[in-house]
Amino acid sequence: MNKRSKISVGVIGAGRIGQLHIEHLAQNIPEAELVAICSLNRARTETLANQFNVPKVTNDYTVLLADAQIEAVLVAAPTNTHVEMSQAAAKAGKHIFCEKPISLDLEQIDETLAIVEKAGVKFQVGFNRRFDASFGRVREAIASGEIGEPHILRITSRDPAPPPIEYVKVSGGIFLDMTIHDFDMARYLIGDEVVEIYATGGVRVDAQIGEAGDIDTAVITLKFRNGVIATIDNSREAVYGYDQRVEVFGSKGMVTAANPLTDTVAFSGSEGTRAALPPYFFVERYKAAFLMELRAFFACIREDTPPLVTGKDGRAPVVMGFAAMRSLRENRPVLLSEIEKGC
Amino acid sequence: MNKRSKISVGVIGAGRIGQLHIEHLAQNIPEAELVAICSLNRARTETLANQFNVPKVTNDYTVLLADAQIEAVLVAAPTNTHVEMSQAAAKAGKHIFCEKPISLDLEQIDETLAIVEKAGVKFQVGFNRRFDASFGRVREAIASGEIGEPHILRITSRDPAPPPIEYVKVSGGIFLDMTIHDFDMARYLIGDEVVEIYATGGVRVDAQIGEAGDIDTAVITLKFRNGVIATIDNSREAVYGYDQRVEVFGSKGMVTAANPLTDTVAFSGSEGTRAALPPYFFVERYKAAFLMELRAFFACIREDTPPLVTGKDGRAPVVMGFAAMRSLRENRPVLLSEIEKGC
Amino acid sequence: MNKRSKISVGVIGAGRIGQLHIEHLAQNIPEAELVAICSLNRARTETLANQFNVPKVTNDYTVLLADAQIEAVLVAAPTNTHVEMSQAAAKAGKHIFCEKPISLDLEQIDETLAIVEKAGVKFQVGFNRRFDASFGRVREAIASGEIGEPHILRITSRDPAPPPIEYVKVSGGIFLDMTIHDFDMARYLIGDEVVEIYATGGVRVDAQIGEAGDIDTAVITLKFRNGVIATIDNSREAVYGYDQRVEVFGSKGMVTAANPLTDTVAFSGSEGTRAALPPYFFVERYKAAFLMELRAFFACIREDTPPLVTGKDGRAPVVMGFAAMRSLRENRPVLLSEIEKGC
Amino acid sequence: MNKRSKISVGVIGAGRIGQLHIEHLAQNIPEAELVAICSLNRARTETLANQFNVPKVTNDYTVLLADAQIEAVLVAAPTNTHVEMSQAAAKAGKHIFCEKPISLDLEQIDETLAIVEKAGVKFQVGFNRRFDASFGRVREAIASGEIGEPHILRITSRDPAPPPIEYVKVSGGIFLDMTIHDFDMARYLIGDEVVEIYATGGVRVDAQIGEAGDIDTAVITLKFRNGVIATIDNSREAVYGYDQRVEVFGSKGMVTAANPLTDTVAFSGSEGTRAALPPYFFVERYKAAFLMELRAFFACIREDTPPLVTGKDGRAPVVMGFAAMRSLRENRPVLLSEIEKGC
Repeated sequence: MNKRSKISVGVIGAGRIGQLHIEHLAQNIPEAELVAICSLNRARTETLANQFNVPKVTNDYTVLLADAQIEAVLVAAPTNTHVEMSQAAAKAGKHIFCEKPISLDLEQIDETLAIVEKAGVKFQVGFNRRFDASFGRVREAIASGEIGEPHILRITSRDPAPPPIEYVKVSGGIFLDMTIHDFDMARYLIGDEVVEIYATGGVRVDAQIGEAGDIDTAVITLKFRNGVIATIDNSREAVYGYDQRVEVFGSKGMVTAANPLTDTVAFSGSEGTRAALPPYFFVERYKAAFLMELRAFFACIREDTPPLVTGKDGRAPVVMGFAAMRSLRENRPVLLSEIEKGC
Repeated sequence: MNKRSKISVGVIGAGRIGQLHIEHLAQNIPEAELVAICSLNRARTETLANQFNVPKVTNDYTVLLADAQIEAVLVAAPTNTHVEMSQAAAKAGKHIFCEKPISLDLEQIDETLAIVEKAGVKFQVGFNRRFDASFGRVREAIASGEIGEPHILRITSRDPAPPPIEYVKVSGGIFLDMTIHDFDMARYLIGDEVVEIYATGGVRVDAQIGEAGDIDTAVITLKFRNGVIATIDNSREAVYGYDQRVEVFGSKGMVTAANPLTDTVAFSGSEGTRAALPPYFFVERYKAAFLMELRAFFACIREDTPPLVTGKDGRAPVVMGFAAMRSLRENRPVLLSEIEKGC
Repeated sequence: MNKRSKISVGVIGAGRIGQLHIEHLAQNIPEAELVAICSLNRARTETLANQFNVPKVTNDYTVLLADAQIEAVLVAAPTNTHVEMSQAAAKAGKHIFCEKPISLDLEQIDETLAIVEKAGVKFQVGFNRRFDASFGRVREAIASGEIGEPHILRITSRDPAPPPIEYVKVSGGIFLDMTIHDFDMARYLIGDEVVEIYATGGVRVDAQIGEAGDIDTAVITLKFRNGVIATIDNSREAVYGYDQRVEVFGSKGMVTAANPLTDTVAFSGSEGTRAALPPYFFVERYKAAFLMELRAFFACIREDTPPLVTGKDGRAPVVMGFAAMRSLRENRPVLLSEIEKGC
Repeated sequence: MNKRSKISVGVIGAGRIGQLHIEHLAQNIPEAELVAICSLNRARTETLANQFNVPKVTNDYTVLLADAQIEAVLVAAPTNTHVEMSQAAAKAGKHIFCEKPISLDLEQIDETLAIVEKAGVKFQVGFNRRFDASFGRVREAIASGEIGEPHILRITSRDPAPPPIEYVKVSGGIFLDMTIHDFDMARYLIGDEVVEIYATGGVRVDAQIGEAGDIDTAVITLKFRNGVIATIDNSREAVYGYDQRVEVFGSKGMVTAANPLTDTVAFSGSEGTRAALPPYFFVERYKAAFLMELRAFFACIREDTPPLVTGKDGRAPVVMGFAAMRSLRENRPVLLSEIEKGC
């Protein structure tokens, strides 16, 4: 692939995810060329640009958008900037990869999706787990009918350690920060829409999280239009590491995706047999998925196909998050239609 | 152990469970002596008596209770006879092992437990799964603090095939027939009381079950007094066999009990690696547990200790079943206290 | 099955295996009736007879053989008595179940098998592992062609702890005492004859075993007539318990039998995930197989079919044991034909 | 890391392994800079140079060695060129990473190692499996004493499909081409030297391999100086994929490394539970190990420490291969000292 045919891309945001995208773009995605990084952290930006031979750095995203050479942008800045940046990028005719969530405001999401549609650019939302090979195979087992009609879905999703309390305070709450990935996974696997949510939970890990108005442990029940019932359970702290499993039970069988382990070693002694733990957290666990989502983004630009995670896919889990919040508050199942009307 | 010191026991009921108890008593429980079988099925009773050298058969349980030699009875006749037989047995001074559920009527349960208490006899309810070695170890891991404070419990409980529709019609519904075991398991593992239940479900396996007014697929959420949140999922038909797993997540770790498999063989070919299925159904899966529950019953008689499954343990899951029924009907979480007051 | 149609059986020997057979005969084998126990240990014999309602006890096996009512005998006395007892039993017209090894003397084995054949009685040798469900399924996978042509067989066979040194001294050596089971397993699984053996090993567990002229750790290579190559590895002490696995590799796949575990529980904490150990030793591990071998014995009597473990099957592993001993001594591969000629 | 401080490296050979090294150097090893590729395949060389921005290409390795800027070379050309190239590179003062085997001629190996030593350059041999994380953990479990004294080692090493017959003809035979990796693994894990080898095998996969004078199925027994006994089994064709497992049994426990699987998905249906296969072959399975061995090579240059795979480590498995060949030919155990003297 010569340079001419590469898609020029700029990255906005150089936090943990932004850096991962930068590394992938520089090393593992020959179909793209990373030409600019925009971040408010000048030192980090320069270090990254140096390390990965990125020609342009800026702390002003409008400068990046003004660069006519740039065809696509990755929006990996904090959530509260996604809408403004995505709208501006769309208006500038750039294809957009936007980290989740698009926004915590449904009206703003709708406005953004309308602008994107009008601009005719690609817009992919960063639900990286869809690109995990194991979850992909689970989806295939469902979509192909291998397990028959799906009846019950169980998602286990637990973090190894809670985020800093300052992050918790601005995170939008566990449902919009953490469960949002599981809401997306549920929709992705089942291939249908959720109509009702019942959420329950509590503060079991860290009292500070409760003081911040959030919970750290949650169990959520979803009812799909097609009759599937799903449960999600979340915890902010699993001492054995990042726990990300799914199980789908259907009329002809069950398909599960277990945690990968850091190695395949087992030690048998007089106390039992001991095996390894899962990779520590999302960067380690989903490294390949983070790479694959970017490759899929560039493929949809190149081949002019719809993104594998659409704006609608970015919006639906936010609605589900609001429904879960209301359900927890009012201790009753909440219809998603209540959120749509009430917003 | 000479015959003098054995506990003389009579069995009432010779259905699937009754026969299993008879076999165990005759062959594997040296501390008891099976002296009488009572069943309405004359031919089967005689065959069993012949096979296992049981001296006395009758089709009238009062005859059995009138036998002064008999110290203990096993009530394994249909559910609607449990109360009458248990009360009569208690009044006759016999220790009682009663299959679950005691009754589908809370008042009758309370009356029975009062009579049992007044009679001062042992009364153990047939929640056999408590005696499964793996579930026992899970409970230990919780009770000993090995997993720290428990936060989330997940119970998977799926039958290999639905019962005959005639059985379904008189079963009391999935919650009192099938989930009742899981309600008991939840209480047993967590060692605390449930305060609220949210149940959802549907007819996914067999339309006839729906026509009989029941459901065949259910997902239930339990809130415990101590903050633990549990989910139970049930299906009347898992094509891969009887699926009975638990997972308990806590502040210091997670403990799980997987399904046993019928053998340890794996075949690796070009399509993947194939392992065995679980034992077909409860008789195969819980054979050892059914034996252990009887041995525990005779031990509590001999040592004059409380049964490991008390009358209270027999009653609580019935309350939970009613709460689940109401929750499903009204699509809202139901407090167990509502059932207690309203019944 | 009424008593008339049961096969009357006497057991000679009341050691660990003898007691297990007695228990099985008394409780779990309705097709046989245990009518006599013969053992030199008077107290133990009476206790057993009392416990299991066995009418006749004796310390003279000829008394037992003289009982015309007895149709079959189980020879579970020490190895050095097997030949004399089996020959006498055959001459008395009794069917014989003989513990392994028949003898450590090939001429005596041949003489015994000739007498048995002339008497026309059944003669089954106690290679219990053939009746293990998992190993049975492995054999099926080979015999049915599921793994194609078998190429490589690996047998792991390790005891949890060495026997008393006094036992080691009279055991005939590791190859005839311990590996003999694996030699039989190899023949059973592959369904063909071994032609050459190379054995190596050493004293790694207990110096006393070396002083007794034996080894405690061994690795043996077998070449089959059909080209399969097998390895067996043995140790007298695996701290994690009785380790009994097989793996067969063929042109169309691989089939393995892993160790069963005492429970299905796993604990995940910050150090990894810990699973259970195998059952402690052969009595626990092969309980069902010990039962099944007896039922097969009675079935071959009743149906007048050849035993599933024949006299030839009892003899071949002894030849293999001698070949292994010579191989170890001379540090070279030894043909089984050398043993046949040289004995 | 700025460019000045990077180690300039040239790669000789652009076959399957050469290309993998080139890709790793270009993308994943910031501590090195790939400045030249030498290969006889002009088209492929130019494509690679273009793809990875490599400034210099040549088909003459002496041109590459004459480049004063180049500090280190990777010798990944065919085996029969390793000696000449390594010697020339050493004389040119370049650090050398040489693919295995150094040579199939012990004298030439010795000569090469002497030249390398005199030149004072680093010389690392391409035994990539030492850098696999799981095997590394197994080694730690042994070296740290976690399993006590090691007694028995089992290595399973089977390819998914045989190489082209033309390759087989020049490969040096299965022991020097395939088992050589397992010989190295055995030495690496046990941390001691083998003194005697017994090899057996046959042609089971493809008659053409036999016609080429080689075998395709092998079982090898190794005796270590410290008493450990190892077995290796090899096949050129495992239909379920690349099978690379180790098991080490010791006085205090057992440690195993199983195959990784391509995903963590399991499907349970009425026929059993089906799990995934291992990654197809060495490029997929050992990708991370191939990367880690190069990083270790550059680390030993930078830190001036001995390579983790020394010239001696490169030589020993060749001696073992010769011993195995003689053992197979003469059907007897062969001392490695016989090879040393006789060569």
